[in-house]
Amino acid sequence: MTIPPSPHRPDAVERTGAAAAAAVPVPPTERFAARTSGMVASEIRALFAVASRPEVVSLAGGMPNLAALPLDTLSAEIADLVAREGQVALQYGSAQGVPSLREQICEVMREEGIEGDPNDVVVTVGSQMALDLVTRLYCDPGDVVLAEGPSYVGALGSFAAYQARVVHVAMDAEGLVPELLEEALRTLAAQGITPKFLYTIPNFHNPAGVTLAIERRQRILDLCAEYGVGVVEDNPYGLLGFSSTRYPALRSLDRDVVYLGSFSKTFASGLRVGWALVPPAVRDRLVLAAESATLCPPSFTQMIVSRYLEKHDWRAQVKTFTEQYRERRDAMLSALEAYLPEGCTWTVPDGGFYVWVTLPDGIDAKAMLPRAVTARVAYASGTGFYADGYGSRQLRLSYCYPTPERITEGVRRLAAVIETELEVRRTFGLPGTAPELRRGAHTPAPDTA
Amino acid sequence: MTIPPSPHRPDAVERTGAAAAAAVPVPPTERFAARTSGMVASEIRALFAVASRPEVVSLAGGMPNLAALPLDTLSAEIADLVAREGQVALQYGSAQGVPSLREQICEVMREEGIEGDPNDVVVTVGSQMALDLVTRLYCDPGDVVLAEGPSYVGALGSFAAYQARVVHVAMDAEGLVPELLEEALRTLAAQGITPKFLYTIPNFHNPAGVTLAIERRQRILDLCAEYGVGVVEDNPYGLLGFSSTRYPALRSLDRDVVYLGSFSKTFASGLRVGWALVPPAVRDRLVLAAESATLCPPSFTQMIVSRYLEKHDWRAQVKTFTEQYRERRDAMLSALEAYLPEGCTWTVPDGGFYVWVTLPDGIDAKAMLPRAVTARVAYASGTGFYADGYGSRQLRLSYCYPTPERITEGVRRLAAVIETELEVRRTFGLPGTAPELRRGAHTPAPDTA
Repeated sequence: MTIPPSPHRPDAVERTGAAAAAAVPVPPTERFAARTSGMVASEIRALFAVASRPEVVSLAGGMPNLAALPLDTLSAEIADLVAREGQVALQYGSAQGVPSLREQICEVMREEGIEGDPNDVVVTVGSQMALDLVTRLYCDPGDVVLAEGPSYVGALGSFAAYQARVVHVAMDAEGLVPELLEEALRTLAAQGITPKFLYTIPNFHNPAGVTLAIERRQRILDLCAEYGVGVVEDNPYGLLGFSSTRYPALRSLDRDVVYLGSFSKTFASGLRVGWALVPPAVRDRLVLAAESATLCPPSFTQMIVSRYLEKHDWRAQVKTFTEQYRERRDAMLSALEAYLPEGCTWTVPDGGFYVWVTLPDGIDAKAMLPRAVTARVAYASGTGFYADGYGSRQLRLSYCYPTPERITEGVRRLAAVIETELEVRRTFGLPGTAPELRRGAHTPAPDTA
Repeated sequence: MTIPPSPHRPDAVERTGAAAAAAVPVPPTERFAARTSGMVASEIRALFAVASRPEVVSLAGGMPNLAALPLDTLSAEIADLVAREGQVALQYGSAQGVPSLREQICEVMREEGIEGDPNDVVVTVGSQMALDLVTRLYCDPGDVVLAEGPSYVGALGSFAAYQARVVHVAMDAEGLVPELLEEALRTLAAQGITPKFLYTIPNFHNPAGVTLAIERRQRILDLCAEYGVGVVEDNPYGLLGFSSTRYPALRSLDRDVVYLGSFSKTFASGLRVGWALVPPAVRDRLVLAAESATLCPPSFTQMIVSRYLEKHDWRAQVKTFTEQYRERRDAMLSALEAYLPEGCTWTVPDGGFYVWVTLPDGIDAKAMLPRAVTARVAYASGTGFYADGYGSRQLRLSYCYPTPERITEGVRRLAAVIETELEVRRTFGLPGTAPELRRGAHTPAPDTA
């Protein structure tokens, strides 16, 4: 075997130190990148295994209720797609996404007052991928990201994966508090720190269940502009509002907002079709990042969504979903009112999937979880929604998936578990055992004790 | 509006400098992370727009030929899946992938001698995503990755996105040259550098079209083990071999190899279903990384692949694909032999999609490309397959997608373009115009001039 001369001789590599000692072999699997130290299993995911046992009422997950989907019609439609357009649907596609779908996405966004150009839409594998890639584009290790406290656990995962530092800003019942945002921006600026962006879920917040008041929206955009901080608006639940109030998307007020959308809650999460609408200056980089992440999103699932939007009354379907979720929300709020002991407070969502509960002082939601699962009810404990260990007295309840009857039963079981915790604390004379005066569906803020 | 006290007051943020000046606002879109500087548009992607005009014979892309797929049967099968299992197929799933599919993937890998555990398989959105996440897990900025020269353009994109430094190791007609790998490892070790891993495509290399000789495989694994360097084996074409030779996967020889597989070439690329088989120590981290990248891969496309593997004779389908690709490979080799001028050399692939062509000295494949497209033929120029600007005399020809007739016509057009280039150089007395002695389908290595 002859060895040809190579123009890629390794000695062309720049020398970083003369005559360095030969490397000591280390098992390759122990040589992970520094960023992996921030990757920890989400508490919610860890819970899925136990919580998915049929006897447990899971108020933990965020799975949409797909029972309302017209599966027979969809089945015929998808069969037709494969038979007629299979050569395209099963082939590689554009990294930016199927053009016709990008046009339809602009139509969907118009429902929330957004005027977007299909050229500025990047289709992703769920909006999680968009969020991950936006973080990839913006965040160097150590960079600061502002986020509501609590915030979406998947966002915290991506921020951790890119070693960004999260500074939480508190909410109250009206969502993110502008005065606290300003305080955060001012304090950081005094340290020479400009956060890369504010990550916010203005509508029907996950997990807090609150919605940013309309009159706060422009103020928050102005503050971010004043301090040179980008805004990333995550809006998967925007179309699932229970009242007649129309909340304008932040993107409808400011074209520089990076907007993230998803079909996971309005159509089908298992197709994993989400998107980002971004300013042109971001778009080309985002497409490049998407290309290195997955080459291109699945043509097939995109074309299914495109057909669905074209051939079905998708607005009516969203309305059907919304009515179901409203009914479930009502069941949960009634049950909370009926069963939860003194000292518990909770938020009243005007849309979306979640209620955020604050437990009486002294009760640790994470420590209580195994006992709750034993009592056949599961929830997501609060600390998973903070980057800084806060949230121990809080938990998220989802009303999206179980039936109203199951929700009522689940809350009843949960209330009994909390009662037992309180009883134990009273018996042992532990602090925080006196019932607090407040109780019910009102402030205090989801974020404050 | 009352502002509740917040436990997340921004002044809790660690101060990095006392009384730093207030930040000067910078437009947020100009504050990208350092890693974005390495993100450049792939030359191949940039080409797709022009090359996809119908009059152009594109020998540039790597799109599989799906014409052989039984679309009617698939259509009925998928319709049945939606009707019967839609509630699961359209719902969120596990971040690691559908369990039944992970078992079937182990069956597929057994075809190449690999014994894997379904628990160690992570399903990804194409194997590109697996590659991107493995890089995320292993590479800090500045870390060294070894890769064949030339290497897969999508891998180079991911390495760049994580700011890894690529050191190419040359191939010859028998694939990666162990002696040059050893030289690279030794030189780097002398500098105190242990590469994070060797990224290698042993079978039917993209773009080089060569296959790693069987007798070199153990040697390469031993060298990497000796120097504490991981091995990432990318094997999307492994089942598409043209001869009776069975090449053992590196993973079949060493359980510490990180193995990447894909259904994009053996079934349907538009479903974007790939996977990684990894040692247990890597698996949990890989699942976490996948979760932050996309939450979970699409349940729907995974269940389609699973049904396909269960209900169809997928081995026969792979055989059908392979026969088509062999016929096209033969058409391309005959045309190269018939038309290419003196001084051109090329590799002879024993499987897969690609032939790697070296042009006569003095001809720049990238500069020639616009003239080729004008002459209605497209290819992928060589520099895109190197991280270091090498490859200017080289180009990749794909025979996977066009018919044999189109391939012949495309090569004829390409040959005429090269002839014209040579003619111009001769007319102006430029260097490298004397026909070289060698020509044809043999060494020199794909990588050397």
